[in-house]
Amino acid sequence: MKRVVTFGEIMLRLNPEGYLRFTQANRFEASYAGGEANVAVSLAGYGVNAVFVTKVPAHEIGQAAVNELRRFGVDTNFIIRGGDRLGVYYVEKGASQRASKVIYDRSNSAIALAKPGEFDWKAIFSGADWFHFTGITPALSDNAAAACMEAVKTARELGLRISCDLNYRKKLWDSETAGRIMGTLMRFVDVCIANEEDAADVFGIRADKSDVTRGELNRDGYISVARQLSERFGFNTVAITLRGSISASDNNWSGMLYQDGKSYFAPEYAVHIVDRVGGGDSFGGTLIYCLLEGYKNQRIINLAAAASCLKHSIEHDFNLTSLQEVETLAAGNASGRVQR
Amino acid sequence: MKRVVTFGEIMLRLNPEGYLRFTQANRFEASYAGGEANVAVSLAGYGVNAVFVTKVPAHEIGQAAVNELRRFGVDTNFIIRGGDRLGVYYVEKGASQRASKVIYDRSNSAIALAKPGEFDWKAIFSGADWFHFTGITPALSDNAAAACMEAVKTARELGLRISCDLNYRKKLWDSETAGRIMGTLMRFVDVCIANEEDAADVFGIRADKSDVTRGELNRDGYISVARQLSERFGFNTVAITLRGSISASDNNWSGMLYQDGKSYFAPEYAVHIVDRVGGGDSFGGTLIYCLLEGYKNQRIINLAAAASCLKHSIEHDFNLTSLQEVETLAAGNASGRVQR
Amino acid sequence: MKRVVTFGEIMLRLNPEGYLRFTQANRFEASYAGGEANVAVSLAGYGVNAVFVTKVPAHEIGQAAVNELRRFGVDTNFIIRGGDRLGVYYVEKGASQRASKVIYDRSNSAIALAKPGEFDWKAIFSGADWFHFTGITPALSDNAAAACMEAVKTARELGLRISCDLNYRKKLWDSETAGRIMGTLMRFVDVCIANEEDAADVFGIRADKSDVTRGELNRDGYISVARQLSERFGFNTVAITLRGSISASDNNWSGMLYQDGKSYFAPEYAVHIVDRVGGGDSFGGTLIYCLLEGYKNQRIINLAAAASCLKHSIEHDFNLTSLQEVETLAAGNASGRVQR
Amino acid sequence: MKRVVTFGEIMLRLNPEGYLRFTQANRFEASYAGGEANVAVSLAGYGVNAVFVTKVPAHEIGQAAVNELRRFGVDTNFIIRGGDRLGVYYVEKGASQRASKVIYDRSNSAIALAKPGEFDWKAIFSGADWFHFTGITPALSDNAAAACMEAVKTARELGLRISCDLNYRKKLWDSETAGRIMGTLMRFVDVCIANEEDAADVFGIRADKSDVTRGELNRDGYISVARQLSERFGFNTVAITLRGSISASDNNWSGMLYQDGKSYFAPEYAVHIVDRVGGGDSFGGTLIYCLLEGYKNQRIINLAAAASCLKHSIEHDFNLTSLQEVETLAAGNASGRVQR
Amino acid sequence: MKRVVTFGEIMLRLNPEGYLRFTQANRFEASYAGGEANVAVSLAGYGVNAVFVTKVPAHEIGQAAVNELRRFGVDTNFIIRGGDRLGVYYVEKGASQRASKVIYDRSNSAIALAKPGEFDWKAIFSGADWFHFTGITPALSDNAAAACMEAVKTARELGLRISCDLNYRKKLWDSETAGRIMGTLMRFVDVCIANEEDAADVFGIRADKSDVTRGELNRDGYISVARQLSERFGFNTVAITLRGSISASDNNWSGMLYQDGKSYFAPEYAVHIVDRVGGGDSFGGTLIYCLLEGYKNQRIINLAAAASCLKHSIEHDFNLTSLQEVETLAAGNASGRVQR
Amino acid sequence: MKRVVTFGEIMLRLNPEGYLRFTQANRFEASYAGGEANVAVSLAGYGVNAVFVTKVPAHEIGQAAVNELRRFGVDTNFIIRGGDRLGVYYVEKGASQRASKVIYDRSNSAIALAKPGEFDWKAIFSGADWFHFTGITPALSDNAAAACMEAVKTARELGLRISCDLNYRKKLWDSETAGRIMGTLMRFVDVCIANEEDAADVFGIRADKSDVTRGELNRDGYISVARQLSERFGFNTVAITLRGSISASDNNWSGMLYQDGKSYFAPEYAVHIVDRVGGGDSFGGTLIYCLLEGYKNQRIINLAAAASCLKHSIEHDFNLTSLQEVETLAAGNASGRVQR
Repeated sequence: MKRVVTFGEIMLRLNPEGYLRFTQANRFEASYAGGEANVAVSLAGYGVNAVFVTKVPAHEIGQAAVNELRRFGVDTNFIIRGGDRLGVYYVEKGASQRASKVIYDRSNSAIALAKPGEFDWKAIFSGADWFHFTGITPALSDNAAAACMEAVKTARELGLRISCDLNYRKKLWDSETAGRIMGTLMRFVDVCIANEEDAADVFGIRADKSDVTRGELNRDGYISVARQLSERFGFNTVAITLRGSISASDNNWSGMLYQDGKSYFAPEYAVHIVDRVGGGDSFGGTLIYCLLEGYKNQRIINLAAAASCLKHSIEHDFNLTSLQEVETLAAGNASGRVQR
Repeated sequence: MKRVVTFGEIMLRLNPEGYLRFTQANRFEASYAGGEANVAVSLAGYGVNAVFVTKVPAHEIGQAAVNELRRFGVDTNFIIRGGDRLGVYYVEKGASQRASKVIYDRSNSAIALAKPGEFDWKAIFSGADWFHFTGITPALSDNAAAACMEAVKTARELGLRISCDLNYRKKLWDSETAGRIMGTLMRFVDVCIANEEDAADVFGIRADKSDVTRGELNRDGYISVARQLSERFGFNTVAITLRGSISASDNNWSGMLYQDGKSYFAPEYAVHIVDRVGGGDSFGGTLIYCLLEGYKNQRIINLAAAASCLKHSIEHDFNLTSLQEVETLAAGNASGRVQR
Repeated sequence: MKRVVTFGEIMLRLNPEGYLRFTQANRFEASYAGGEANVAVSLAGYGVNAVFVTKVPAHEIGQAAVNELRRFGVDTNFIIRGGDRLGVYYVEKGASQRASKVIYDRSNSAIALAKPGEFDWKAIFSGADWFHFTGITPALSDNAAAACMEAVKTARELGLRISCDLNYRKKLWDSETAGRIMGTLMRFVDVCIANEEDAADVFGIRADKSDVTRGELNRDGYISVARQLSERFGFNTVAITLRGSISASDNNWSGMLYQDGKSYFAPEYAVHIVDRVGGGDSFGGTLIYCLLEGYKNQRIINLAAAASCLKHSIEHDFNLTSLQEVETLAAGNASGRVQR
Repeated sequence: MKRVVTFGEIMLRLNPEGYLRFTQANRFEASYAGGEANVAVSLAGYGVNAVFVTKVPAHEIGQAAVNELRRFGVDTNFIIRGGDRLGVYYVEKGASQRASKVIYDRSNSAIALAKPGEFDWKAIFSGADWFHFTGITPALSDNAAAACMEAVKTARELGLRISCDLNYRKKLWDSETAGRIMGTLMRFVDVCIANEEDAADVFGIRADKSDVTRGELNRDGYISVARQLSERFGFNTVAITLRGSISASDNNWSGMLYQDGKSYFAPEYAVHIVDRVGGGDSFGGTLIYCLLEGYKNQRIINLAAAASCLKHSIEHDFNLTSLQEVETLAAGNASGRVQR
Repeated sequence: MKRVVTFGEIMLRLNPEGYLRFTQANRFEASYAGGEANVAVSLAGYGVNAVFVTKVPAHEIGQAAVNELRRFGVDTNFIIRGGDRLGVYYVEKGASQRASKVIYDRSNSAIALAKPGEFDWKAIFSGADWFHFTGITPALSDNAAAACMEAVKTARELGLRISCDLNYRKKLWDSETAGRIMGTLMRFVDVCIANEEDAADVFGIRADKSDVTRGELNRDGYISVARQLSERFGFNTVAITLRGSISASDNNWSGMLYQDGKSYFAPEYAVHIVDRVGGGDSFGGTLIYCLLEGYKNQRIINLAAAASCLKHSIEHDFNLTSLQEVETLAAGNASGRVQR
Repeated sequence: MKRVVTFGEIMLRLNPEGYLRFTQANRFEASYAGGEANVAVSLAGYGVNAVFVTKVPAHEIGQAAVNELRRFGVDTNFIIRGGDRLGVYYVEKGASQRASKVIYDRSNSAIALAKPGEFDWKAIFSGADWFHFTGITPALSDNAAAACMEAVKTARELGLRISCDLNYRKKLWDSETAGRIMGTLMRFVDVCIANEEDAADVFGIRADKSDVTRGELNRDGYISVARQLSERFGFNTVAITLRGSISASDNNWSGMLYQDGKSYFAPEYAVHIVDRVGGGDSFGGTLIYCLLEGYKNQRIINLAAAASCLKHSIEHDFNLTSLQEVETLAAGNASGRVQR
């Protein structure tokens, strides 16, 4: 069984039920999520030994986060306990022309205040094949950035493959800081996952003539971004998610893989959205799975795009699709006929 | 008042709320449904004396199933009590490219284990005009198949008209067995309801060049299927539902009636789906109603298609539309404007 | 801070959850709403001192209605207590071809039975800039009509601007009575809000060749209606909402402003509906805000159409959008991308 | 099968979930209930052909009330349709020292405005053994009182036994009117059901030295009330419910039967309350059942008290206990051990 | 109308539904509460102009807190906006031998980080009669303690009466710090509210021989504590809540007032608990109301104890009882009989 | 870390919300439970490596059961997949005099149809310290009984300690069969857990003069039962739960340990019940933990009784208490005071 380690924050996610606005809600659905945790759940669902590393407070809310990961098969044995709070984020689901809203309340969380030495990376990476993190983790705090640096160095030494989803969060840091710190970390990364905006926000790498607020995709622009990323940091693989936002209810969705100077595009899906948060993470998780399995280029991007297409039909952050469902959609059956 | 008898299984239907997946659910919506029960509810809603015949266990879950039928006006006086369990089926609602899933847990239910002699068909059919069953009932068990045979023979003797919805369920029996048993039963049937797949699965009757996973309809193919069915079994009426599956959220929907060698197509509806389970049953129930009322060909298929179009907008299996709503839609008003 | 007074009925709104039909519901969502109360909430949300005047019973259900208004910032100091009942209305949300249904149970409510002298209009209008009512209020009872007449006369004397949304309700009165009473009230009105049907139903003013049950808009027809209204009653402003009903799930939506003989059309929005009740009221509330702020013609109609477009994505009657959200949409960003 | 007719109002009952107060609720549980309907449900649950007669509006809320009665086995064939509204009542569940609250909004309901001639009592009573009404029905309106008078006269002519639960509602009429009208109706009544307060409020019949706000019972007082009732109106049976209110959460509960000058007391139960509304109606329904079955005095009151004790543990108005459960409790097993 | 100002923190309160434990919950009920906000709601419910002063973030969760206060009539005009987060606290309701749990996540909230000068106390206290705070507010941060000091000084200058509920929170500060800071603030306080533990924890003032984990009350001990408090700080009034904890489901509850060297005890109530959080705040709010109204000693403590007894039967923190309910209970009617 | 293996069935548990009866429910809370699974959850919660062995179907409902176990820390690596169905049981919560009801629908479940050879007991017990099963498992089917026999033999060979909870289920087998099969299995058992009824039902072992439907306990009787059990089968430890059923809402609860001819009684708790299902399993799980830890007699029974007392305050079957909570209660603090 392959073993993949991901490292980052898990938060309590609170969202009003259905399409209620924050100010209408007197109940919140409570789930637990975070970019790297979401990737771990994807991988665990595919049968990978997915280890998620973080720090959570010793109280029951911290335990509930751990429990939710265990429920979906994630290995939580390296999660450490301590600190005062679990980060919280509030999600309000958009519809039609009304955009979804996310309010973060994650400062001073246990993981943000954790010190690098608290994680025994040698032990954590023992027997592991892959290390994954995203641009969110180093953005949490200087300590978290230092922990990331320790992690990638150790992973490199131990021969793990390393992937990173750029995932720029402008509320956590500014572009300049992100570019500087992420630039250093990227030197250790083999596989880079991004969307067009991330590359621009973090590294100033832009594609011409594309407008992400329209429904249309600009193939050449994405290839250009991937090539620039690849050339600057020596990634052997770059994968980009392609989202065309028609409205909060309907998106077009696809993905591109860039390897050895060649690009591979997945089919484009017209998605009627149930919950789009975590869509990118399901793309990343499936990509890692396919790379671990040694799938071919076009199959890799087709499966990653299909899985993340399906994620948009699933409530909350986690990608709870099976490999069989992903394969079925990637094989062209998007009809949604009842299975009985 | 017209009196219609239907015979089959009623199950506890459990579905997660909204678009939650099975593994996310810690609550299930509980309703009670089954192909023939659904038809009875349609008919009761139109003012017909609809008698549903089955066997349920004497405990409270069995009683709850009876209560739900009574609630919607079905005559439950001929339901017998006994056996150990009510069948259960689990429904997970699909969305966009993610298909709905149905898991059946119906083996050894009270009705599947009922013995033919337990039903007093002469008394049941007293004063009745019509008998309806589907291909699910004989598939439940040998006993259930024998009970169906008793029922159709008695119904024929007493001069009732008889309808059957082929409703092939591959998890209950194989095509060969289905073909053999259904073939025998069909000799007593006047009105056959099917979809294109049923005819192929049960009787090997196929239309050329149609692909039900695409959104397009193949008129000639459906006519061909209906003609073959009609010729082989001597049905005076064949009705076929036409579903074009764009995604789990959006379907095209229509129906065809075949009588006296002529075919009548309903308009096609672009349906945004709330719950598609029971769509075929609402088509069958409305068809029977129209035939009982002696409506003309085109009107029959238009109302059956309109009612079953509306069913797709209603939660759970039951068709809870009024005749007035059906007539309004069949008359061309599909705008969904608020009625106040 | 600008001060706007609205006058009318607030009712308990009961709707089944999700897409359940009335006969399936064993729970109702409970909110409190009414045409003029909805307008007040829109205005309070934009920072206006919005005073809502009505009469509610002294019991807890009446208090709950007051509380809901206070919650969203409405000034409830002039609401009087007494009478026996709060009006109730039941809403069943439609989907696809199935229309939404509204059942009113508002007869003999506290406000319908209130006597004109119970409201001290001089005190109520003290410091106010604007008075708004709709055609529903005078339709409630002769007393309510008399109270409206008192209100508009006093408002005119005190120099307030006056707006009215025609809002014809055929279950409350007939066209002839409506035309007679509304005709008298209109003489005091500066700003008239309507949809094409209202103008025809109340005043027999019609546009040619438009069919509101189709998805297409007939620009000339709307201009014609606005011009006729303007000419007959001397309105300086007429605003019309333009709804194209594709289905209960999808509408096209826009608006037209008519001032000084010129017409200004907002862009048309393809709306995927969450809850369309209150859509017209959010249009009216935003229109009043823009007129109070002295915005220019095209901007006025663009903001009113954008706000009411957004209202369709919000549960229950109240328009809980912020000015910033309205401005963003009016500026052309309808992509619904996540804001984080 | 015995046939019992009850006549009265069925209302929409709305209550906040759990122990929420009215002003905290944004959802209401919706059920349908009323004194005489509750009695019919009790009887239907025991296997009696229980006919409930009323008038409900033709809209879906009226239909939902009918459906709820059918669900629990009540014969609804004599319910007539018409009028504008279904009465509503709001229930807030109390706890500990906080009392439950009921707000009625039942004026001008379909049944209150129904005219006596609308009910064909001869047809309704055909084949019936018993007629039951309560003091609520004649209090609804003069028309309803006249309908009651028609009903009891016809019932008497046709030889039915007649029972009445005094059920004084001070918000519907005053003691003087109640005494006058009820006095006339009582001449036709065989079995009178009451609590101590009813007898005092309606007929000025009082027991000495009892204080119903304390937890203690005054046996002699209850016997005195029953004897006075019996003597004044010639009842052959008087049954009185005995409630000792410790708090909104805990009550003592018992009952007394008075026949042929003798009194029979049931054991007293210490009840931990789930929902006490409908407790008296379950007592009445069970009493009628026992009298119909010809049970002996002590057994009658024991079963009636046991059934109504159990009702206090059931949500909403309806008494959904089985005869077996009632017999078990009456036999002395109050331990509530799990049945599995 | 009397005007009372309270100052402190309002938090998002999250609790699992019913008796679910934190680790079982996938939904949280969301309300907004805090010691001083709770007092303001009590007072607003009694008709007082209750002003609550705090700082909340400008986002929607902050707005939702403001809205909840407005809903229950609190004057929110002096709440300032800014900072990053609203404090959160998690409540798990206990039952029987299992204690309730509270987890605080309130560090770095907007109010904790607010600077003293941000509040314009002169404007806030304009026209006010009373200022109330609790020991929680100065414990939030040095800034908050400084703001309290500013507030009490200004209140004293402007002639307001000042009350403080000691409300010691050991997770916010230690006894030594609390004693030092609170000691300074107490010099400005007229009315001190406490429970026995508070006095010991903050000031080392103890009563002999009482054991608060038992169900029994020690009258002399409470008098001793009140006398010591009064003597040390010159309070003219000390009020102490008396809780006897039988279990998480059942408590005994009473209160004592100490004025001019004399003590007045309320009756003791046996409380079956719905939600005990906020019980002390409802006592304080009612006490302030009674003192403002100039009620006599015994009446004051009787009403304060009755109101806070009733609060235990109400979900969430807010005391949503009416004066009439409080008076009824204080008059001795604790039977909880239905009011209809 | 200690390793304990438990073996049995896990079922889908469906219960109406709150106190609703089965026939009122249109939603069921869904959890997953079973006697031995419940014990595993208890142990996992205390930090033991608790392995649960069963067979579940490969579909999503089977997976959901596995997920729920993982969520609470149970090691599910030895659960095998196959078969057609997961057993179901329905629970209706009783209150006051109304008893809880359990309806089992577990026939033909995957585990009941599993063949003994499917479980590799040598591998399963590798590194394990303890094996636990209950009388339910051998009652499921002959195959399950054979698997139990294989398991106990292998466990004995490998030197594990073995415990069994008699747990007689009269719906699964009769006393004679139970006595015969359990008698054979008991020869391998070290620790026997029972209640008084179990010993009588399975082995005909009775205590005189005790009546479990009363609230009183009969100490000598329990000692007599334990001694007889111990003597007949050579158990070194017998533990008996003592339940006094006052009503469905209130029970007295305690436990007795019998070792080396001596008996140790825990204190008796007056329990206000939230959910009593699983109470016995939490007793067994805590007993095993204490025996594994080598605690002394009185401490063992005190902790087991305290934990199972607390379980009665927790919804659903699982014992989600912490060791710290158990220790606190066993130390005498039953006051349920808020922990904050």
